[in-house]
Amino acid sequence: MEKINIRKELAKINEHWSQRVIGEANNQLFKLAKGIGETNWHKHDDQDELFILYKGHLTIQLRDKNIELYEDEMFIIPKGVEHCPKAENEVEFLIVGLNVTSNAAGGKPNL
Amino acid sequence: MEKINIRKELAKINEHWSQRVIGEANNQLFKLAKGIGETNWHKHDDQDELFILYKGHLTIQLRDKNIELYEDEMFIIPKGVEHCPKAENEVEFLIVGLNVTSNAAGGKPNL
Repeated sequence: MEKINIRKELAKINEHWSQRVIGEANNQLFKLAKGIGETNWHKHDDQDELFILYKGHLTIQLRDKNIELYEDEMFIIPKGVEHCPKAENEVEFLIVGLNVTSNAAGGKPNL
Repeated sequence: MEKINIRKELAKINEHWSQRVIGEANNQLFKLAKGIGETNWHKHDDQDELFILYKGHLTIQLRDKNIELYEDEMFIIPKGVEHCPKAENEVEFLIVGLNVTSNAAGGKPNL
């Protein structure tokens, strides 16, 4: 049982759209990531996905609208809802969900 | 589906140790609170409780050690572990867990 400094953990990440697990509580994973550009359009049928932004400006593109997320703002993407995060400049964020989703089935773009 | 500004929601809270629910994802409640002084010693047998500090310095007293939590730091109190948060000056924080715990059975002090 140790505390975690979120900004220090973010500073350790050197790959975009790749989630780093920093904790688990009640079967939820708390994960950090950096991103730039955009992922593929995707959805998660098994889980809601919650974002809290720590740095920058992230546009969460949904099929019917865009959510413009800034530092200290939170957004929940319900399970099954297609989304495509996009950032013109590098963003840093916390994600909460059941699983790591930065894989081929999830949000990691093909580079 | 709207975004939530965490600092604006924190600013609306005018009671200490009383949790304000700002979202739910995968059956977890995301809750904000302010605190000063200390709660009663208590534990939650049904859930882990996760804290992320947004303002100030919160000491999470455990029976065998203290966790000194500052802004942007996170700590998970495992289910069943006795704890007693304490703050000399007002603190603002996010809590994640299955239920609201700021009640008589939970962490709200008797004033």
